[in-house]
Amino acid sequence: MKDIIKKINEIEQTVIDWRRSFHQYPEVGWTEIRTASLVAKELKTLGFKLMIGREVIEDNKRMGLPSQEVLDAAYDRALHQGADPEFADKLKDGFTGVVGILECGDGPTIGMRFDMDALPVSEEHVSSHKPFDQGFISKNARLMHACGHDGHTAIGLGIASVLSSMQSRFMGTIKLIFQPAEEGVRGAKSMVASGVLDDIDILLGLHLGIKEEGSGSVYAGVSGFYATSKFDICFKGVSSHAGTHPENGRNALLAGAATALQLHSIPRHSSGISRINVGRLEAGTGRNIIADQAFMMIETRGSTSEVNDFMVKEMHRIVESIAALYQVTYEIEAVGHAEGGTSDEELVNIVEKVATQLEGLSVKPCLDDFGGSEDFTEMMTHVQSNGGKACYILMGSDIAAPHHNGAFDFEERDMMNAVKLLSLIAETFGD
Amino acid sequence: MKDIIKKINEIEQTVIDWRRSFHQYPEVGWTEIRTASLVAKELKTLGFKLMIGREVIEDNKRMGLPSQEVLDAAYDRALHQGADPEFADKLKDGFTGVVGILECGDGPTIGMRFDMDALPVSEEHVSSHKPFDQGFISKNARLMHACGHDGHTAIGLGIASVLSSMQSRFMGTIKLIFQPAEEGVRGAKSMVASGVLDDIDILLGLHLGIKEEGSGSVYAGVSGFYATSKFDICFKGVSSHAGTHPENGRNALLAGAATALQLHSIPRHSSGISRINVGRLEAGTGRNIIADQAFMMIETRGSTSEVNDFMVKEMHRIVESIAALYQVTYEIEAVGHAEGGTSDEELVNIVEKVATQLEGLSVKPCLDDFGGSEDFTEMMTHVQSNGGKACYILMGSDIAAPHHNGAFDFEERDMMNAVKLLSLIAETFGD
Amino acid sequence: MKDIIKKINEIEQTVIDWRRSFHQYPEVGWTEIRTASLVAKELKTLGFKLMIGREVIEDNKRMGLPSQEVLDAAYDRALHQGADPEFADKLKDGFTGVVGILECGDGPTIGMRFDMDALPVSEEHVSSHKPFDQGFISKNARLMHACGHDGHTAIGLGIASVLSSMQSRFMGTIKLIFQPAEEGVRGAKSMVASGVLDDIDILLGLHLGIKEEGSGSVYAGVSGFYATSKFDICFKGVSSHAGTHPENGRNALLAGAATALQLHSIPRHSSGISRINVGRLEAGTGRNIIADQAFMMIETRGSTSEVNDFMVKEMHRIVESIAALYQVTYEIEAVGHAEGGTSDEELVNIVEKVATQLEGLSVKPCLDDFGGSEDFTEMMTHVQSNGGKACYILMGSDIAAPHHNGAFDFEERDMMNAVKLLSLIAETFGD
Amino acid sequence: MKDIIKKINEIEQTVIDWRRSFHQYPEVGWTEIRTASLVAKELKTLGFKLMIGREVIEDNKRMGLPSQEVLDAAYDRALHQGADPEFADKLKDGFTGVVGILECGDGPTIGMRFDMDALPVSEEHVSSHKPFDQGFISKNARLMHACGHDGHTAIGLGIASVLSSMQSRFMGTIKLIFQPAEEGVRGAKSMVASGVLDDIDILLGLHLGIKEEGSGSVYAGVSGFYATSKFDICFKGVSSHAGTHPENGRNALLAGAATALQLHSIPRHSSGISRINVGRLEAGTGRNIIADQAFMMIETRGSTSEVNDFMVKEMHRIVESIAALYQVTYEIEAVGHAEGGTSDEELVNIVEKVATQLEGLSVKPCLDDFGGSEDFTEMMTHVQSNGGKACYILMGSDIAAPHHNGAFDFEERDMMNAVKLLSLIAETFGD
Repeated sequence: MKDIIKKINEIEQTVIDWRRSFHQYPEVGWTEIRTASLVAKELKTLGFKLMIGREVIEDNKRMGLPSQEVLDAAYDRALHQGADPEFADKLKDGFTGVVGILECGDGPTIGMRFDMDALPVSEEHVSSHKPFDQGFISKNARLMHACGHDGHTAIGLGIASVLSSMQSRFMGTIKLIFQPAEEGVRGAKSMVASGVLDDIDILLGLHLGIKEEGSGSVYAGVSGFYATSKFDICFKGVSSHAGTHPENGRNALLAGAATALQLHSIPRHSSGISRINVGRLEAGTGRNIIADQAFMMIETRGSTSEVNDFMVKEMHRIVESIAALYQVTYEIEAVGHAEGGTSDEELVNIVEKVATQLEGLSVKPCLDDFGGSEDFTEMMTHVQSNGGKACYILMGSDIAAPHHNGAFDFEERDMMNAVKLLSLIAETFGD
Repeated sequence: MKDIIKKINEIEQTVIDWRRSFHQYPEVGWTEIRTASLVAKELKTLGFKLMIGREVIEDNKRMGLPSQEVLDAAYDRALHQGADPEFADKLKDGFTGVVGILECGDGPTIGMRFDMDALPVSEEHVSSHKPFDQGFISKNARLMHACGHDGHTAIGLGIASVLSSMQSRFMGTIKLIFQPAEEGVRGAKSMVASGVLDDIDILLGLHLGIKEEGSGSVYAGVSGFYATSKFDICFKGVSSHAGTHPENGRNALLAGAATALQLHSIPRHSSGISRINVGRLEAGTGRNIIADQAFMMIETRGSTSEVNDFMVKEMHRIVESIAALYQVTYEIEAVGHAEGGTSDEELVNIVEKVATQLEGLSVKPCLDDFGGSEDFTEMMTHVQSNGGKACYILMGSDIAAPHHNGAFDFEERDMMNAVKLLSLIAETFGD
Repeated sequence: MKDIIKKINEIEQTVIDWRRSFHQYPEVGWTEIRTASLVAKELKTLGFKLMIGREVIEDNKRMGLPSQEVLDAAYDRALHQGADPEFADKLKDGFTGVVGILECGDGPTIGMRFDMDALPVSEEHVSSHKPFDQGFISKNARLMHACGHDGHTAIGLGIASVLSSMQSRFMGTIKLIFQPAEEGVRGAKSMVASGVLDDIDILLGLHLGIKEEGSGSVYAGVSGFYATSKFDICFKGVSSHAGTHPENGRNALLAGAATALQLHSIPRHSSGISRINVGRLEAGTGRNIIADQAFMMIETRGSTSEVNDFMVKEMHRIVESIAALYQVTYEIEAVGHAEGGTSDEELVNIVEKVATQLEGLSVKPCLDDFGGSEDFTEMMTHVQSNGGKACYILMGSDIAAPHHNGAFDFEERDMMNAVKLLSLIAETFGD
Repeated sequence: MKDIIKKINEIEQTVIDWRRSFHQYPEVGWTEIRTASLVAKELKTLGFKLMIGREVIEDNKRMGLPSQEVLDAAYDRALHQGADPEFADKLKDGFTGVVGILECGDGPTIGMRFDMDALPVSEEHVSSHKPFDQGFISKNARLMHACGHDGHTAIGLGIASVLSSMQSRFMGTIKLIFQPAEEGVRGAKSMVASGVLDDIDILLGLHLGIKEEGSGSVYAGVSGFYATSKFDICFKGVSSHAGTHPENGRNALLAGAATALQLHSIPRHSSGISRINVGRLEAGTGRNIIADQAFMMIETRGSTSEVNDFMVKEMHRIVESIAALYQVTYEIEAVGHAEGGTSDEELVNIVEKVATQLEGLSVKPCLDDFGGSEDFTEMMTHVQSNGGKACYILMGSDIAAPHHNGAFDFEERDMMNAVKLLSLIAETFGD
């Protein structure tokens, strides 16, 4: 253990440098071409076997994909900002996943997942904000790593470095899974569908920075993820002059309005917590024209997948019925999905045991009522349904502002705690 | 009469040139700086006494004014496109009205109103469209004279020319009123409020092109205007994360949706026809955020002012109650208004008599159930309430496409019929 | 003419006695067994050929029929109150129509329609109310002739008496049509469907008492009837305990509530006036049970049959869609219907001419914008579609209170004006 | 302990006889005159000090009181069915509470609460239903003890009997509280307000028959009661003829419908489970009349009092806003209320310890997520806020059908387990 920790301490600055590089060039879901190409290059250098692009991303299971125009622009920008052209070519058009595989002999297959995408948030340009003050602020306007995924990616590379240099200390097969488009819970489903997680026995995921818990604290597991689904809904009606022929219109605006109200009145479910939100509604053109178009962005949640499924089923019936009510047509596009999920107790116990041995960490048991959503659960439930075990770990950090805020920043040394923890857990299975 | 007609025939090409100049540089409501400055310049040249800008536009009665940013850009563009700087200065910031006064001795004060604004419509670039084919298509992107107001303005200048050159043939005082922002029924109210119509005994207005009636046909009067009001409504609520604290939000999106549905269920009124439309609704930002903002564009109509007032009163109560229902605040901005209106029979009879004498015109009596809206009614009812008479005339024209369509065009020679008709009506009062 | 008038003056007391007999024993729609049996008896006595019961009422076209229990009780009561058992037997179970036919030689077939039903209104027991003061007040609790149909029936018998005694003065065939269930516009359709009106060339109907017009005034025709349809709607859902399993319910109460709101927001129609009303809504049982049942009573109207048909079509789609929205089943029962209608100008002119000759009448031309509904229009449009002419006449009367009010009463001598007018119109066709 | 149990075994038939007497004469909330008068008579006979009627029921805190007419009829029926006239007089008009006090020397004041009211349920007349088969079925039509309160009352008298005959074995003051109107959570609040519970240190309540648990099982405590509130809402509008003057109505039916929909869309609350139900809606009169009246029966629930309070607050705002929306007036009447509640762990432990000593009982610890409502919580939270301890016990029983069902029946010998358990708990405080 000591030698591993020593090794990790040696690479601290490298990990920080990686993080700052990713932080400067944030890329939102399905456009992580620069990020993923540099990850691939590094993994290859470290001797990992690579799977990339369409090998790890199932085309038609990608959710919430941007338009081809946006994808093309992202590709150009990435090349401009230092993406490795060799890998970029395999990643383009929204196939921005990378998996690095290291075979260390007999033993279980251990997966570790790191998400890479940034957010459409404008980063604060004030001297109290460290990335601005120290010169590694986002160079991409209106985009920012405001959720710490830059750190997650750097942690992944740090672990790769340790595993590579001390390969003999580990057993089994290690799969480092670098995932696109976690924001909006859009990406995990397509990696699962590619089959790349089919052989995994042990799956670990993590998140940096828990608002209430500062640097040094660790939750050894998380359960009580909310299942969630995201949809875009579009109604199409028939326009008509509202003054001269009101009866000829098929009013998509009213269809949207009625749908919003009806969605918010789906009954409570006795078997758990449910949520619904219509976050955006946009309908109509001119004041005197009966609107022939409405667009809505909605999401459902449930404290269990069953409850979320109930909400989704109700949503479908409501949209269909309201469309009939207003004689309009509709399209519902699923743009995100994550299951509910529970960390395996056995694995949580291992995490807890290892964490307790690490200096300076304050370890807590499994957080049972997380109440948030993460598409790691797509991978988690898949591994569990194959008989494997999975665990999601929260690493506390002193953060500068809430997640998704333009002033968000985390304590960089907390990345090293994560590198240590995951590396040592992996070593456990080598005993 | 013959000499007047001869004079008018001589200026036909000038009137057409004016129309084509205005057509090439369309300016929407409150930005008619080029148009109005050239009108002012011409009127001055012709010997009219000028009233302009704040003299004829009451500041706080202007409705649906664009932002200062838009006004500034319009001013710059106008100067660039040949506006007369002397007048442009008085017209800028949304005071784009001009009145030309010609005193011809004892007699009644006769007002004639011409509207000058264009529409946010993209003009068709096809050879079948005459303005494109003959090279006078709009030079301002996404703006077009698609309602014939370019023709109305040219008619006004044509009349000014006739009156000026044959002043001795007329009696009384002639006021040529060039009005901004008729589209959206936004401008007339502010000209009325300025007092410039207070002394008018006889008021005439007209429109070119009646879909069902071709060139040569004339309706000697129009009654049965629908009163109409236009409003922008804004709700402000409180955002909250829809997953973690749904109870903390104050949902402006649902307030907007409920308002849309409620407005469309205002009961029918036994004393006439009513209309309501929510033409545009836009609310919320992110999918998982309870919306803290909603914006709506609506209009009401009534076959009488009483019915429209009922609709407006109901609208106010609905918005206020729904705001209370969702604990949000609201603002209602009146952005347009026109009264119902009726042409005076006595004046219609005069119009009909004069028109019948003109060669080539097919004259019809008053159109009683117009069913449309025009803010000329604001001027009409004001003059009538002062004991004057008013009449609105429809001049048929073979039009190429419906009004407000990108392929709209009228028959230019019909402008000359209008110049003749109005000039000869004015002469009638000189007898 | 004079001899006819003399004859009519002789029977005035008889007509009044008839009216008072009917007034004392009011019977609501489809239960007019006593009334119709006495009408039949009298017509037979006077030498009319009789058609009765199922001969003139098409079974499955009856609308808004009461329950068998109510029909049975009405039959027993009628026998008890002096119904003629011979005819009562043919009228029972809701076949309470009678037609009397008198053949007077060559000539057109002239129909006259009289409605016989009373209302569920409690008659006032105060000395200022003549029926109470003079002892002919309703003997049937909570039922009253509060719309003058007792007078209409008496007028019909008065005319029968005149025609019978002076048969040689008339030509053609006279059909006196005594109709049940005009209130709620429920009965006319079934008489039309029986075929009894198929051969009619001239059809006359009338109503006593126009609020604004007193005794002696006559409208020679009525047009502008509103088409109307009446429906009962029932939703059936699934109950569930609202506390323990809210998601298992299928909420019929909310389906009813949403339907009510949606019906009231059917858009205005550009081709005429429309009306909608949900007059009654009743849903649910216990406070903590999700309601599995809702019942609604609604009506639509239109200033034309086209507009009313639009409202009915919208209603059907709304009910069907809302049922799908709440996963409940529904039934829609049509319980009343009347078309729009227009009196024939030619016939109105004849009525006007005859009325003008009658002493003491103030005659007005056709009332064009009636704005009310009457199922006489079902007969009217049927006759007109067969090439015949129809006219509906309003006979003014000094009434004591509005129609449908417990203090309603009309001036009995106005019945004699009606007898005279209709008799003389009939005679006209004998010339 | 053995002597107490022996004594209790001796009175088994007496307790059963009491229960059967109460079962035959069920009385719903606020009308328990026969029941309470017989309880009072027995307590007096046994030497208890009596508090009765207005002494233990605070007038204006009674909720959901029936009409005076219903109260009068109940009084007459009770006298007829064997009520003791002396006590009946004090109980009449809805003051049907009785408290018996036995002072046994120094020690804490121990309260035990028994509810006495029946339900508006029709009892099954089939031989498989024991009360029918053995001849003690309800003699009051459409009323039934279908929730076991007859058993609770008999248990209370059984305990009174034991305490009285072995008074020296107990210490402190015993208060046996016989409460009216538990159904609909209407009665407890008024007993608390009377002050009769102010001095209680230890409060016990119980319920017979837990669906999932059969005879012999006991939950030593219950927590997780849902707070609940019951309201009747009435809207008053203005009627108008829907055809002739739709704009004059103030539509109470639509106000009711909109309120129902809005109530069902109150947002979820992040701090717990919430429920809402509009169980009954009744509005309007005639089909063609705009409804001037609507009546609704609703209830709210919350897994905590905070959540329920949120629901109630939202309900008030919604009703007020919708009333403004439709220009109608409203009244909200609170007809039932119960707080959330938690049994005190210390007291649960005592109950568990005593129960474990009793032969034939299978004892379970505190049931934490009860999920139902009981107005015992009103007493519980009052005692706790005064520094006392409270506990609610569930006594399992093999029941014949679910509670509130016409075939409900419990195993009578389970009453004796309750008598034993409560008596021995009381004895515990005498040590």
